[in-house]
Amino acid sequence: MRGPAVSARGTSFPLHRPETYLLSGGVPDTRLIPNAMIARAYRRALCSSTSTGSLDYGDPRGTPRLRAAVAEMLRATRGISTHPANVMITRGSQMALDLIARALVRSGDAAAVEKIGYRPAWDALRAAGAELVPIGVDEKGLAVEELASRARAKGRPAGEPIRCIYTTPHHQYPTTVLLAPARRIALLELAARERLAIIEDDYDHEFHYEGRPVAPLASHDPAGSVVYVGTFSKILAPGLRLGFVVAAERVIEALSALRFVVDRQGDHVLENAVAELVEEGELQRHARKMRRVYKARRDALAASLEHQLKGVLKFQVPAGGMTLWASVDDRIPLEAWRARAREKGVMFSTGREFDIEGKARPFVRLAFAPYDESELGRAVQRMRAALDGI
Amino acid sequence: MRGPAVSARGTSFPLHRPETYLLSGGVPDTRLIPNAMIARAYRRALCSSTSTGSLDYGDPRGTPRLRAAVAEMLRATRGISTHPANVMITRGSQMALDLIARALVRSGDAAAVEKIGYRPAWDALRAAGAELVPIGVDEKGLAVEELASRARAKGRPAGEPIRCIYTTPHHQYPTTVLLAPARRIALLELAARERLAIIEDDYDHEFHYEGRPVAPLASHDPAGSVVYVGTFSKILAPGLRLGFVVAAERVIEALSALRFVVDRQGDHVLENAVAELVEEGELQRHARKMRRVYKARRDALAASLEHQLKGVLKFQVPAGGMTLWASVDDRIPLEAWRARAREKGVMFSTGREFDIEGKARPFVRLAFAPYDESELGRAVQRMRAALDGI
Repeated sequence: MRGPAVSARGTSFPLHRPETYLLSGGVPDTRLIPNAMIARAYRRALCSSTSTGSLDYGDPRGTPRLRAAVAEMLRATRGISTHPANVMITRGSQMALDLIARALVRSGDAAAVEKIGYRPAWDALRAAGAELVPIGVDEKGLAVEELASRARAKGRPAGEPIRCIYTTPHHQYPTTVLLAPARRIALLELAARERLAIIEDDYDHEFHYEGRPVAPLASHDPAGSVVYVGTFSKILAPGLRLGFVVAAERVIEALSALRFVVDRQGDHVLENAVAELVEEGELQRHARKMRRVYKARRDALAASLEHQLKGVLKFQVPAGGMTLWASVDDRIPLEAWRARAREKGVMFSTGREFDIEGKARPFVRLAFAPYDESELGRAVQRMRAALDGI
Repeated sequence: MRGPAVSARGTSFPLHRPETYLLSGGVPDTRLIPNAMIARAYRRALCSSTSTGSLDYGDPRGTPRLRAAVAEMLRATRGISTHPANVMITRGSQMALDLIARALVRSGDAAAVEKIGYRPAWDALRAAGAELVPIGVDEKGLAVEELASRARAKGRPAGEPIRCIYTTPHHQYPTTVLLAPARRIALLELAARERLAIIEDDYDHEFHYEGRPVAPLASHDPAGSVVYVGTFSKILAPGLRLGFVVAAERVIEALSALRFVVDRQGDHVLENAVAELVEEGELQRHARKMRRVYKARRDALAASLEHQLKGVLKFQVPAGGMTLWASVDDRIPLEAWRARAREKGVMFSTGREFDIEGKARPFVRLAFAPYDESELGRAVQRMRAALDGI
């Protein structure tokens, strides 16, 4: 997902040597960012005859052009029938999460989250005053039954009803598991019945390798329970900081009023530049290309692990996403391995980083997107070498 | 300042006809934005050999390059001796204000503000849970004596000590009055003694027309009381959304941690592009040019008002800023004039918009920056014509 949850990279201090392979991230390969394409679109957006409007103060929901382009893209590629009035552009998904948390949650409210999950979302909910209620995750994704039993106010000791659930149904973060069809239906029904908002974070929708991507919860949500979050960080570049929210118009209005206080508005030149890339199909072409690249890398990593770390790691080849989640044989002292691997020049994340209570969990998460096949091979060799002498 | 405080323009819905003169804003003339210069710098920042780093996740405090360039610019042009470690780049000054409010204020804390002032700053403080304490403003700026008496906890009925004061000492918003030297000294002493943070918003520092700009409070702040906020919105373009904070390192760390939750980081390509403009002196050259342009516009507006609205408006020609603040003869029904002027094709702000209680005040605020001399002349003619028949 958006970089390592806990590593030093989030604040960009190079604690690792440059020759270290950072399998701990979840970023795209920045060497493949189409920067010339982005620069051309940016120049056109900035220098066209209508550009001065983009440099003035504008709509905190984003430019009409990008909101329309996103609505059309979501209709065409994700089965979400929506209208520009239901779309708001944000600074990456993190601003979306922060605004949503501030809009939905009052201090002391309960917010459900996946107990193995995405820490920056928890941070946003906590900063808004939420008390987090962790819900289990298994091989079928979020344990919706458990959520249902916790959602009944009388079932919770604290008594506050659960206001919302933050979830990653397409590629569960960090396990990459897909939420099972029956659970999707149950979750939407539960949300409608209990008036629970579903914050659906679909952070890397495009990167699905087996068959078509599964339609988001937002694509069949008659009750209007879903607040859908997406991002251009994975498909274009993390540093562009462009994300979006799709929700009922009253939710968009509330987010927009808050956003006016937070940073007033986005970068409307950049928004119009990206709108052009979407309108012209450039973004979609780039996504198709990256999907082929990342699929080959996924397969190369899986093959290397099978070859070099058989018996140490067990995993399902992920159907999508940019990382691989593997369980570690319980005879391996995981944190010692991780430390030794770091000395050998490869960093990876362990289950503890994603556990809401910071509990040790015998899993590793390995990013395959940022490195090519031979680099991944060398990284796995180093992981193998690090096993010796621990 | 940053657009009209209450008008429709903040959300960019064109409620006015295009041929309407918007003297209600406080924006620069977007026709004079150096967009080709910005586009060239952006392309270089995006396509240079080191650019991929800017497109990756990075430091929430901003790129090292822009932080260093801002520190050097502040030293050279504003007398603030600072270090990049004390500088954080934000999305315009609004994000700075929101982060500062969230970092300094706990729910129920008291925050002092200028009682005729900048509503988006109040909104940020209120959103963080502050109870606002309005302090008077006169022809010498903020009434520091009044603040001193309110700052003593025992002097306030609510009992909570005042945590901070939000102030605009260079060109008080909206009156453009300069805070008098003796009051500057008194304010800094008061802040040090009472452990009061001063949020100094220096939003249009460059646009000072009579003599040199006055050094900010932050330039002589041994106690470290000042959290200094600046922006590139007035000098380059509002839509770029680039601002900065200068403060003690512990404050920058707190803001940075919060910012990671809010939107993770800024647009590092844009930050490096603007760093280049600062390093090369392009920004400063552009500022000098705009200062000449805006000075001539200020003088043209003042002359038009003298000629067309003598006896109706009384004002001091402002020593700086992008707007003129004038008192209105008390025989004029101000809101009727404003409504009629709008029909005639000119919008201006009245004192009520800037009063913290929304009380009617017999003042108008007229922006001269966005229009050239002949446009300003026509706008004033329309104001004059609107007086007939009310």
